[in-house]
Amino acid sequence: MSGSSYGKIFRITTWGESHGPAVGAVVDGCPAGISLAEQDIQAFLDRRRPGQSKYTTKRNETDTVEILSGVFEGKTTGTPISLLVRNQDQRSRDYGNIAVSFRPGHADYSFKEKYGFRDYRGGGRSSGRETIGRVAAGAIASKLLSELGITVRAYTKAIGPCTVSENEYRYSEIMENSFYMPNNQTATEAAQYVAGLMSEQDSCGGIVECVADHLPVGLGEPVFDKLDALLAQAVMSVGAVKGVEIGDGFGAPASTGSRNNDPFRIKDGKIYKESNHAGGTLGGMSDGSRLILRAAIKPTSSISRTQHTVNESGENIDITVRGRHDPVIVPRAVVVIESMTAVTLADLLLQNMSSRIDYIKKVYTEDRNVE
Amino acid sequence: MSGSSYGKIFRITTWGESHGPAVGAVVDGCPAGISLAEQDIQAFLDRRRPGQSKYTTKRNETDTVEILSGVFEGKTTGTPISLLVRNQDQRSRDYGNIAVSFRPGHADYSFKEKYGFRDYRGGGRSSGRETIGRVAAGAIASKLLSELGITVRAYTKAIGPCTVSENEYRYSEIMENSFYMPNNQTATEAAQYVAGLMSEQDSCGGIVECVADHLPVGLGEPVFDKLDALLAQAVMSVGAVKGVEIGDGFGAPASTGSRNNDPFRIKDGKIYKESNHAGGTLGGMSDGSRLILRAAIKPTSSISRTQHTVNESGENIDITVRGRHDPVIVPRAVVVIESMTAVTLADLLLQNMSSRIDYIKKVYTEDRNVE
Amino acid sequence: MSGSSYGKIFRITTWGESHGPAVGAVVDGCPAGISLAEQDIQAFLDRRRPGQSKYTTKRNETDTVEILSGVFEGKTTGTPISLLVRNQDQRSRDYGNIAVSFRPGHADYSFKEKYGFRDYRGGGRSSGRETIGRVAAGAIASKLLSELGITVRAYTKAIGPCTVSENEYRYSEIMENSFYMPNNQTATEAAQYVAGLMSEQDSCGGIVECVADHLPVGLGEPVFDKLDALLAQAVMSVGAVKGVEIGDGFGAPASTGSRNNDPFRIKDGKIYKESNHAGGTLGGMSDGSRLILRAAIKPTSSISRTQHTVNESGENIDITVRGRHDPVIVPRAVVVIESMTAVTLADLLLQNMSSRIDYIKKVYTEDRNVE
Amino acid sequence: MSGSSYGKIFRITTWGESHGPAVGAVVDGCPAGISLAEQDIQAFLDRRRPGQSKYTTKRNETDTVEILSGVFEGKTTGTPISLLVRNQDQRSRDYGNIAVSFRPGHADYSFKEKYGFRDYRGGGRSSGRETIGRVAAGAIASKLLSELGITVRAYTKAIGPCTVSENEYRYSEIMENSFYMPNNQTATEAAQYVAGLMSEQDSCGGIVECVADHLPVGLGEPVFDKLDALLAQAVMSVGAVKGVEIGDGFGAPASTGSRNNDPFRIKDGKIYKESNHAGGTLGGMSDGSRLILRAAIKPTSSISRTQHTVNESGENIDITVRGRHDPVIVPRAVVVIESMTAVTLADLLLQNMSSRIDYIKKVYTEDRNVE
Repeated sequence: MSGSSYGKIFRITTWGESHGPAVGAVVDGCPAGISLAEQDIQAFLDRRRPGQSKYTTKRNETDTVEILSGVFEGKTTGTPISLLVRNQDQRSRDYGNIAVSFRPGHADYSFKEKYGFRDYRGGGRSSGRETIGRVAAGAIASKLLSELGITVRAYTKAIGPCTVSENEYRYSEIMENSFYMPNNQTATEAAQYVAGLMSEQDSCGGIVECVADHLPVGLGEPVFDKLDALLAQAVMSVGAVKGVEIGDGFGAPASTGSRNNDPFRIKDGKIYKESNHAGGTLGGMSDGSRLILRAAIKPTSSISRTQHTVNESGENIDITVRGRHDPVIVPRAVVVIESMTAVTLADLLLQNMSSRIDYIKKVYTEDRNVE
Repeated sequence: MSGSSYGKIFRITTWGESHGPAVGAVVDGCPAGISLAEQDIQAFLDRRRPGQSKYTTKRNETDTVEILSGVFEGKTTGTPISLLVRNQDQRSRDYGNIAVSFRPGHADYSFKEKYGFRDYRGGGRSSGRETIGRVAAGAIASKLLSELGITVRAYTKAIGPCTVSENEYRYSEIMENSFYMPNNQTATEAAQYVAGLMSEQDSCGGIVECVADHLPVGLGEPVFDKLDALLAQAVMSVGAVKGVEIGDGFGAPASTGSRNNDPFRIKDGKIYKESNHAGGTLGGMSDGSRLILRAAIKPTSSISRTQHTVNESGENIDITVRGRHDPVIVPRAVVVIESMTAVTLADLLLQNMSSRIDYIKKVYTEDRNVE
Repeated sequence: MSGSSYGKIFRITTWGESHGPAVGAVVDGCPAGISLAEQDIQAFLDRRRPGQSKYTTKRNETDTVEILSGVFEGKTTGTPISLLVRNQDQRSRDYGNIAVSFRPGHADYSFKEKYGFRDYRGGGRSSGRETIGRVAAGAIASKLLSELGITVRAYTKAIGPCTVSENEYRYSEIMENSFYMPNNQTATEAAQYVAGLMSEQDSCGGIVECVADHLPVGLGEPVFDKLDALLAQAVMSVGAVKGVEIGDGFGAPASTGSRNNDPFRIKDGKIYKESNHAGGTLGGMSDGSRLILRAAIKPTSSISRTQHTVNESGENIDITVRGRHDPVIVPRAVVVIESMTAVTLADLLLQNMSSRIDYIKKVYTEDRNVE
Repeated sequence: MSGSSYGKIFRITTWGESHGPAVGAVVDGCPAGISLAEQDIQAFLDRRRPGQSKYTTKRNETDTVEILSGVFEGKTTGTPISLLVRNQDQRSRDYGNIAVSFRPGHADYSFKEKYGFRDYRGGGRSSGRETIGRVAAGAIASKLLSELGITVRAYTKAIGPCTVSENEYRYSEIMENSFYMPNNQTATEAAQYVAGLMSEQDSCGGIVECVADHLPVGLGEPVFDKLDALLAQAVMSVGAVKGVEIGDGFGAPASTGSRNNDPFRIKDGKIYKESNHAGGTLGGMSDGSRLILRAAIKPTSSISRTQHTVNESGENIDITVRGRHDPVIVPRAVVVIESMTAVTLADLLLQNMSSRIDYIKKVYTEDRNVE
């Protein structure tokens, strides 16, 4: 049921299967007047494109985006922005046992049961290519946020057991290693760890962290559409994500109120928090501090090792999943998590426009000709 | 913006502030023909009622629910079910510094910034009493689920550092201790831990786990309204929750594909998984195994210790938050998490009715008089 | 399925049955900072209250509203506003044949088929009392609109064949006759017409017209949520309404482009239209001219005459619908149509806040402390 | 704000401008297992294609549709169906005064005010080409309805003053004349009428009627999402529609209850109505009789005559709208109205699946493996 859309005002709809003609997205509700060109979106798509390092699938796709509507003379018009990316790698091939068996860790079985049959080519709708639409939409959301000085950036905090602890962050190194980790040394360790798994036809997961800065206070709608709640939906909806946390997250339970509460202080007329265990949200609304979230990503399900499973005829079989798999999907998930965060923030930014009668008066009284 | 509603078909709307006349909920989209009485709902509300142990606030409220609509002759009619709980404890009192200062860890500051002013009485809309509507709605969702044999139950996995590990679960002990833990021994340790904090005017958090059994395969709507994504929103939207995970969750990143993938097997014509690291979801849809989620709950923000903060005049001050606080909110959050899980499952169960043309034909061809 | 809510940002949810304990509404998404008291709402409810003239049902209800949430210190807080009206006239009585037969022109049969059974007391959810929630919400929407100088007013254009033509409008007479017609003379003719029908145990319908002035240009969201489209839904959703038209409406087809197009002109720097066949919308957005809509209301279905029908046992029978019926529902529908128009305009006013990046910058750059 | 989507379960999103690269639609929530091919959709698009008679624009477009997702092996998969139609007639040309003036009767002025600037090429998003997405989606909805034996068909009831009265309907003649009228004689008169207007560089409107048969009883969701209310939104959202009525519509007010009520009768165990003034809805739900609606369509706004207007510099000017205009848009609107009706019915059909617990049990108990 209409599960392919996200957001209330800034609303994205994605579509497309791995081996169909194309994938894409429609972004509705984007305000008019924002500069937007295909290269703005392409820059985001290039960050999730396969084949960029030896740790990602060799599938060769340029993932070139075409803007089909909603932009005129270089600016958004306020009408829906339709984005199209043709699938290039649709070569006809024998799907063999994939077509008639349920791969462990994949959506094959649940898709089959839900819909009665399934598009078995490359995972169909559950393929990682589904995220192309998210990232294209995220690029537009980021443009909107940047108009207000808001920045969002994601990076890899952990690959398997190789974790960058908070006091070792070097943000300048993020773009210097294949894993987008804020520490080249840890990235080197991660590379060795992943290489070992690859030699064993195995895979691993990791943790992506995303931060947003310069948010206005008050984004997020009590009660169910809280900032942290919508971020949790947005991020958990990305395939392979098994957990989401804000601020201290799963570390908070073992803390105490006196340590976990972030004291408010004022300096030069500006309110700030002395610490940020909360990760930038209070009562489900942004609190003016840095927003911090983390996503736990499971090991890639596609591994070349032989595994137990069941086929559609109801027989126990052994399966070997051939093909070009990412031994770790985390580096390519970074821009996806960043995009979903940006989309959520853009939507809540627009929703918040109606929170106060004084804002409404300001817009309509000063800007509008009322007869 | 309309953030007080959740669900697409089975849709709940909650309303009410801590110290206003009442709190309540409207449940729209509940199918007709389900037996429902006030005692069904009251049983759930009694589980979150304050004053049941020395670890919960002494605020004395019976929280008696009244069904105002949507039920006729003991059955749901298909029309909206309006639920009302009068606030009893609205005694006039001096809110003192609370009214003009921002309590650390609370929503005071973000509410003030978002809306321009705030209802400072007992936290207003951000009060824990907001969850009454959720729990009342959850009781109805649970009735619906039980018609299909689906069960949902939540319990406390950890209080501060006192954790029940999976091989120590004794479900029969859940109702035998004040913390709803599946192990009385751990509950005793937790009691000592909490007592220590209370003596220091401090507080702690914990982890709630929720499981659901006997789910049909295929609940959850790709892409954004996946089962796990909506559960993440639903659970994270509960005040004080800072993290949500499904199955192995934040443990998954450090595992490997060969260990983390759950092999399918078939026995007596039924498909099952040999393990359940996934926690009952594949591709964002239920996979027929037990659904398992966990919520990380932060330490209670209201502590009697003196804390740094800022007042509405923009001055740095020290604040002491007086009143009747739960030193740990976790035991009362158990039924709230269970309720949000039930509401999410009920909604996805109904959404899934339209997934296949054969279901649609079945309902309309056999049951309906078509002229 | 969740059909009891309307609006995207300014979102109303109504609940309640004719003979249940109460009826009410929840208004979510109302901006903070608007003055609101129970008397603001009561004034609207009093306009639809029964028993005000001999042409309305004698059912005696004060329809006293209670605000249960969302207002603090006389102003809206931005949180959901819960409104409650207790049903007073729930006297136990014998519903007789109503309970087991399908009244012609009523929803009895379709309710029974849809839900499997029905609340037969006074029409249950399909009773005219369902509109109480709409009117209460409409009062709040009107308060919001009035903050921006927007006015909405409805009146009766026709009772049966007695119609006030446009050149005979005398707005000052609207409140001077029982039918809320802008011409006392026509109202007198209507009174005679209705009296004749009453003596024959019959009923009639009429046409309500609603106008809104001082709207900003551009309200309404292309493509499906156009101003006129949402007004059509809002007004057609009122029981007994069988048609909705904007501007020249059903008169437009027989006109020609050269006559029907409204020429733009400019005077003193302000753009206006020389005529208003369009009724204030162009491309589904407000165009700065007066908004004009009309609703066609069918004759009251409840008549005392004997009618043919079928009972639940599947037998052809004759039915006599006893009780206190309005011989014409039109006068009481006036405030309902006005309320639905106000709610639609309020929602679109808020939706439109996000249409342009310059509005967004204005609100966030000037008003917000961005760290 | 996200106004480009319609429907709750069967949800369509359209996008695209007249002179951009393409127009299209995404249909989300379509059940799996329905046979669907491009020719199913093309057949609908061909009905609205320009250039089919001398009464429609000469713009030459084949409007060839491509299915980009959601169909596998000839059947819908349950995932979003993306539909693409490339614009062929985008020849570069001088838009002249259109680019800087507001055409009377068009959305130019309201678009400019709403969004700050506008895509002036061929009306941009407000172009009639926007309906391509609606019609493509309508074709899919019709396929779904046909699986249950439900039929929907629209035709022209009136062109200007030339009206087919009900006792003159000859349905077999609908496809025999350029206007899709159910009476060739009236069509001939209409042809003469339109020819006269064309010679005067003028245009006219008309009335489209749409009927649906074999609907299950009970489609439509009280209170705001009633069948007639959603049809009103759906149909009024089509450009140029100024009024919508159901059954007797604007004729009902002058009738009386005794004549307007449709008596129920039973024959051979089936309930029917002796008349159908209601047009197939009672209480906003289908009542088992034929659904009947009518849409009033205004005269084409684009006429070659010189008209008064204002330009963007704020000057009063005379404008001549050159180009290839339909002197009457009604014949091409027929399939658009039919499509919007089909989409609405499809959505309500799916929504209604959850109305009763017995349907839910039937689907899940019999069809699903519940562990």
